[in-house]
Amino acid sequence: MGELSARVLGRVIGGGCAMIQPVLLCGGSGTRLWPVSRRRFPKQFTALVGDESLFQATVRRMKAAGFAPPLVTAGAECRFIVAEQLQATGNEACGIIIEPEGRNTGPAVLAAALHLAARDPDTLMLVAPTDHVMPDAAAFQMAVRAGEAAARRGRIVTFGIRPTRAETGYGWLEVRGGVAGDASDPLEVPVLRFVEKPDAVAAADMLKSGRYLWNAGIFLFTARTIIDAFARHAPALAGPVGAAVAGIQADLGFLRLDAAAWAGVEVISVDYAVMERSDDLVAVAFGGELGGAWSDLGGWDAVARAMPLDRAGNSLGGAVVALDCAGSLLRSEAAGVQVVGIGLHDIVAVATGDAVLVAHRSRSADVGRAVDALRAAGVAQADTFARDHRPWGWYQTLAASGRFQVKRIVVRPGAALSLQSHVHRAEHWIVVSGTARVTIDGAVSLVSENQSVYVPLGAVHRLENPGKVEMHLIEVQTGGYLGEDDITRYDDLYARGDGP
Amino acid sequence: MGELSARVLGRVIGGGCAMIQPVLLCGGSGTRLWPVSRRRFPKQFTALVGDESLFQATVRRMKAAGFAPPLVTAGAECRFIVAEQLQATGNEACGIIIEPEGRNTGPAVLAAALHLAARDPDTLMLVAPTDHVMPDAAAFQMAVRAGEAAARRGRIVTFGIRPTRAETGYGWLEVRGGVAGDASDPLEVPVLRFVEKPDAVAAADMLKSGRYLWNAGIFLFTARTIIDAFARHAPALAGPVGAAVAGIQADLGFLRLDAAAWAGVEVISVDYAVMERSDDLVAVAFGGELGGAWSDLGGWDAVARAMPLDRAGNSLGGAVVALDCAGSLLRSEAAGVQVVGIGLHDIVAVATGDAVLVAHRSRSADVGRAVDALRAAGVAQADTFARDHRPWGWYQTLAASGRFQVKRIVVRPGAALSLQSHVHRAEHWIVVSGTARVTIDGAVSLVSENQSVYVPLGAVHRLENPGKVEMHLIEVQTGGYLGEDDITRYDDLYARGDGP
Repeated sequence: MGELSARVLGRVIGGGCAMIQPVLLCGGSGTRLWPVSRRRFPKQFTALVGDESLFQATVRRMKAAGFAPPLVTAGAECRFIVAEQLQATGNEACGIIIEPEGRNTGPAVLAAALHLAARDPDTLMLVAPTDHVMPDAAAFQMAVRAGEAAARRGRIVTFGIRPTRAETGYGWLEVRGGVAGDASDPLEVPVLRFVEKPDAVAAADMLKSGRYLWNAGIFLFTARTIIDAFARHAPALAGPVGAAVAGIQADLGFLRLDAAAWAGVEVISVDYAVMERSDDLVAVAFGGELGGAWSDLGGWDAVARAMPLDRAGNSLGGAVVALDCAGSLLRSEAAGVQVVGIGLHDIVAVATGDAVLVAHRSRSADVGRAVDALRAAGVAQADTFARDHRPWGWYQTLAASGRFQVKRIVVRPGAALSLQSHVHRAEHWIVVSGTARVTIDGAVSLVSENQSVYVPLGAVHRLENPGKVEMHLIEVQTGGYLGEDDITRYDDLYARGDGP
Repeated sequence: MGELSARVLGRVIGGGCAMIQPVLLCGGSGTRLWPVSRRRFPKQFTALVGDESLFQATVRRMKAAGFAPPLVTAGAECRFIVAEQLQATGNEACGIIIEPEGRNTGPAVLAAALHLAARDPDTLMLVAPTDHVMPDAAAFQMAVRAGEAAARRGRIVTFGIRPTRAETGYGWLEVRGGVAGDASDPLEVPVLRFVEKPDAVAAADMLKSGRYLWNAGIFLFTARTIIDAFARHAPALAGPVGAAVAGIQADLGFLRLDAAAWAGVEVISVDYAVMERSDDLVAVAFGGELGGAWSDLGGWDAVARAMPLDRAGNSLGGAVVALDCAGSLLRSEAAGVQVVGIGLHDIVAVATGDAVLVAHRSRSADVGRAVDALRAAGVAQADTFARDHRPWGWYQTLAASGRFQVKRIVVRPGAALSLQSHVHRAEHWIVVSGTARVTIDGAVSLVSENQSVYVPLGAVHRLENPGKVEMHLIEVQTGGYLGEDDITRYDDLYARGDGP
């Protein structure tokens, strides 16, 4: 992993970021797309549309536009997913800022600005969520370029989506001078006010008026401009966020905000902290029928709108057979799970290996409520997946019974699990692909495909992948207690203590 | 397994069956309850309603009524499931007749009659499907007793269900003298005619007339009576079915009909072969509002009707959370699969570990069509389960990838896998519960919990459970080809050749 971080981060750290500097916000946990999106692996890291994740598509879009390698902000739990997905696509980050806890977008944006301003307060920051779909990269690039001059002059530029329906789930922006613009020459217009999620009547009126855009949460400004704006509109943030940034610790190349200072930071969105209180915002219109499709994939209904449809208006994904269905989204998200739909109208059905959502499409916005109910009932599927990502790779429980557990473990090249021991369980390891270096009570050996080793109860052991390809291993645990917390760590490359 | 068969079959074989002799038909494959019911494990063996399987409930009902241990007819693929389910409930069979291939109910009933007549042509046979729900065993017993005298006098007695709705999915029986009867003194009335599945108008008329019963496919007659009826109405069956019965081979206690003779037997239902052509049937009315609930669980809609409902008319089973649902059947049939329903009306959603059905309730009858489509597309879930039952126990694939496969294997006490070898794969075995006796190239050893053995590619090996409790084992296969057909069998307790 040290090697990975060096590869991902090395080239840019210390290199300066003179171009437009994307700041990609990965802090959200998106439960409305459950069961595909969960706290431990949120929607921005999943391939909801197309073959790459939304995060990867966002990184690629920024690169294609000629912007600098992004500065990424992410929760501690997702840091290795960010690093892994950057590496998988051969992309690099200008840095990965770790938020010890989620504090919504306001503190994340301010922290990024302070971090960038320390090197150059005139850094032009393009702040963007990483869970949006914007297939037309060229249109997006043109819109950004249209806002660049105003941003360099010290204005806060927001990108608004030309509305295509009376959507009550979004915030809207009233702008002066209309939103028609032109796809090839996007207009920059003053923002008069923010409108929070409206009712249906108000939304219909705004749609008809031609004077409103959807607030997409994408912004362009210099670090200096936004730091000043925070100081004016949300002055209480400056102290604790400044302390968290001043206390940043480089942790395997990640930039970890000081946890104690961050704990005192207010939870607040950038819209609420700054945008709604500013009176000198300008907007650049994007998308709508004038070019540049956009979706925030805010729920399964939005996913269905973003997907290609069959003649009956269905979007089918994975191993699905549909008989006489219409207007429905049917997806199998797990290899080996066959979905069958019969006579369904406007139904969303999404199956993973451990959970199934079936909802009327009109109720997509209530999926989060259902996840809250699951969480309250202590159901693991509310937040976690069977496949658990760790700094060294991932593991998945294949079978569990009273006195045994079977796991599939995949270790990345060069990565290592911690040096550890267990009080209650013995482990059998069978390498099925690649080569492992195994340490048991000080004795080191190489174990290759089709070889096995036994780790007795109490033995101090470590598993490493010294090779150039992934190492896959089947672990069979036996014992009277098989909880993840039966672990004593003696040494860990990833400084995890008791955490994952 | 030899031990099992002896226990199940031993006490009754040779003991004669002077009481009412149940003949339980297990030949159906019930795809309309997919994904819970599949060819390799049909609905009669599943616990669709309550804790025991429909087959087990049927056996218990017959025993409670004071009838003889049943003669069971079943397909070759399901023979070990029948034996296992009988053993699990501590029940016995008078015999288990194996149909080498399904030929519908006519040949199965004639074969059972010929087999029983060889010992006593006056045996009073109570023929019943094993996939019906009849929770009131006492009412059923009373109905059977009401028909006994007529059956012993040489009549064919059929049990008809008093209709409660204008059902178009059933056959109906017109009877002389009305169907009111009395729950405590069921009437025996002459049958005037059979009506095949009627249209909605005809069904409504029949319901109103009070002169019709649903045909439940439950019959009472002596072996002699039904053999004579087959000879009169379906004379072509006598030769091949007689030859198949004459050629019965005792196979581990099972009674295997001669496959060559059976292959020449016509596919025909007992209704069509005999009942619809007879003019001297009598009926005993059962069920309806006069006592004795009944359901054939002919589809998910019928299952929903047979289940207790919540206030909104939902039937929820397993790990299910329902928000604002009504009239819906939501079931999780696999440990570890969480189902969530939101805003559903009259929807059936059933999830197993490898398949999900979502259908409008009104389309329950079309599930079989969907299974046909899956089968045509070569989808394994159409017919098989991840857990595959074998004579010695069962196995389940936990993970499969190009060059490895992980299986959980459970071997019953006293059972043994065949002596075998593989050309393309090596196997690691880790015992996680119980004790195994392992033979590898002639060397025999005992392997107990938390011990492992390695079976090299090409080694001739056997796995046995010499203990008194189930033996659970994790098998990790590695190799370039991992198909089930890479097996050479040298010796097999269960005479399977190349079959499962």
